[in-house]
Amino acid sequence: MENFIIKDENALYFETHYSCDNAIFLAIDQKGYFITDGRYETEAKEHIKSTQYEIEILISHDLIRTARNILKKHEKATFIFNPQEFSLYFYEKLTSGLKINFLPKPNFHQEKRICKTKEEIALIEHSQKLNIKAFDKFAAWISKNAKDRSEAFLHFKSQAFLTKKGKYDLSFNPIVGINANAAKPHALPSNDLLLKGDLLLFDAGIKYQRYCSDRTRTGYFSKNGFNFKKEQHFKDSTLQKIYDIVLKAQKNAIKHAKAGMLACEIDALARDVIEKAGYGKYFVHSTGHGIGLDIHELPIISARSKTRIEEGMVFSIEPGIYIPNKYGVRIEDLVVIESNGARILGE
Amino acid sequence: MENFIIKDENALYFETHYSCDNAIFLAIDQKGYFITDGRYETEAKEHIKSTQYEIEILISHDLIRTARNILKKHEKATFIFNPQEFSLYFYEKLTSGLKINFLPKPNFHQEKRICKTKEEIALIEHSQKLNIKAFDKFAAWISKNAKDRSEAFLHFKSQAFLTKKGKYDLSFNPIVGINANAAKPHALPSNDLLLKGDLLLFDAGIKYQRYCSDRTRTGYFSKNGFNFKKEQHFKDSTLQKIYDIVLKAQKNAIKHAKAGMLACEIDALARDVIEKAGYGKYFVHSTGHGIGLDIHELPIISARSKTRIEEGMVFSIEPGIYIPNKYGVRIEDLVVIESNGARILGE
Repeated sequence: MENFIIKDENALYFETHYSCDNAIFLAIDQKGYFITDGRYETEAKEHIKSTQYEIEILISHDLIRTARNILKKHEKATFIFNPQEFSLYFYEKLTSGLKINFLPKPNFHQEKRICKTKEEIALIEHSQKLNIKAFDKFAAWISKNAKDRSEAFLHFKSQAFLTKKGKYDLSFNPIVGINANAAKPHALPSNDLLLKGDLLLFDAGIKYQRYCSDRTRTGYFSKNGFNFKKEQHFKDSTLQKIYDIVLKAQKNAIKHAKAGMLACEIDALARDVIEKAGYGKYFVHSTGHGIGLDIHELPIISARSKTRIEEGMVFSIEPGIYIPNKYGVRIEDLVVIESNGARILGE
Repeated sequence: MENFIIKDENALYFETHYSCDNAIFLAIDQKGYFITDGRYETEAKEHIKSTQYEIEILISHDLIRTARNILKKHEKATFIFNPQEFSLYFYEKLTSGLKINFLPKPNFHQEKRICKTKEEIALIEHSQKLNIKAFDKFAAWISKNAKDRSEAFLHFKSQAFLTKKGKYDLSFNPIVGINANAAKPHALPSNDLLLKGDLLLFDAGIKYQRYCSDRTRTGYFSKNGFNFKKEQHFKDSTLQKIYDIVLKAQKNAIKHAKAGMLACEIDALARDVIEKAGYGKYFVHSTGHGIGLDIHELPIISARSKTRIEEGMVFSIEPGIYIPNKYGVRIEDLVVIESNGARILGE
């Protein structure tokens, strides 16, 4: 096993069952060194555990100096690290003058986490189940109360359902987009009001025991109310056509995704449907992304990704069509790859 | 004026009145280059303006390559950058093989923003005024409704007041600590319930037109209700003594802080009061921090900071005493340094 150095909180948590915002972890052979400052001593000693390493907890005023003192005892060893995780400043302070082979490996720790254990899959699935419940409660609330409410208020209100009034953390800042705002993949909530006849796109997730969920639905606020079901009936026939194309693309990718394929082949399962319908240029992002402790993990399900899909990988399938200044449609579920194909999580 | 390269969102906003999460800005003599991708083209063109630079907006699939093409036209020039802002990965991709003098200057952009303009001070003050109103409304709500509510719920509920139900962004994740949890400077909200007779520490802020506010009060939940006034009356006499020491320390620093002092001298104005009272070892952090677009800016008001305080600097004064496993007290206001001393913002 390779020696490595991490400081990212989710990587720390994966290795030690604990993290804080000021720590460095070094793994050397079977030994781990968790270096942090006095503020975190009690919690670190209470929570840190590992089946893989014998972990020594070191409390320090100067984490980098403590890390260097350990590294000095391992001259000529090789340590891998993620050059996207370390600032130039941190890297130079940590490594200058040491006779160590520091080997940059972008995303090495996400690579390590790319196939989830059964326990991790269960946590992501539970996270998504809670998320789906929040979607349902939010939709019921919209049906009754949301007329003439602004996007900003809906964005605020959605968090009561998602977090269960403070019980859970969000996995990311939810996206709430009405009509044309749904066409901007990363729109901030505006003061536009939700009216009957509007389209509403909602993209949100929570964390359960640190594992993220993520889901998107696009719904129609009709006279009869509102829901986040996959089958939607829009008044505008072009919009209905676009919605059905996105849904077909999403279902096609989920139905045919399986272990052994390349990630770009799964992307194509969705993209081809949209391209054949003539909307290819309006599908402006990748089909999906891995998920776990980070909201965006490996594998990336894009047209360029040559990652070989394996059992235990968990990722989103979320094609979309965005017509600028009109509307946007996106439908997203999480899937896990099992022996007989992709299974939607949480349903 | 020095040439520089930035990508931090608040630095981008300061220079161009616009930012997004995928952009590089190069300032070369009187010219600025704002490089971003197609998702942000419309908004960038709509919002970017500067009295200082003639800004060219460049839309690119490969921001680093576009930046390198500009840099290649300025061989042997010097560009400053913040080595804490650039990952090692980004830095190496941007700079490799170029005949440019890249000069690391930690926090150079925060240095540039250390003295606020009148307009910036007005924005921070307005942000703090809105924040104070939220504190008052939250206190009134606690008086009536908070008995037997958990910290996690109070944390959730506070955000309704702070954001005005989604109208404003938070400047940071608010801290809500009951009794012993208030003794942990960075505690996450627990399921502990607020009872009559408890101490409640609340540290929170919002953003108004991107400028941050920040305030802390420690209150007593008595039979008669709850408020965030500076004068508090606790039943426990030791706690009352500790509270009064913190308040005296805070008032002393605000009263005597003035332009021309070193930051460490302002820290000492608060710290000496606490040390003389015998609680020095329980005041475990710095007296304050600058604030503006970032929640933590320069100057740092610490025992080690040799920064010379100038008119227009805006920072917090927030001494505290934390007795582990019992309670913590912190009182925080923002001040601006004017010709006749420090003025509390928002009151």
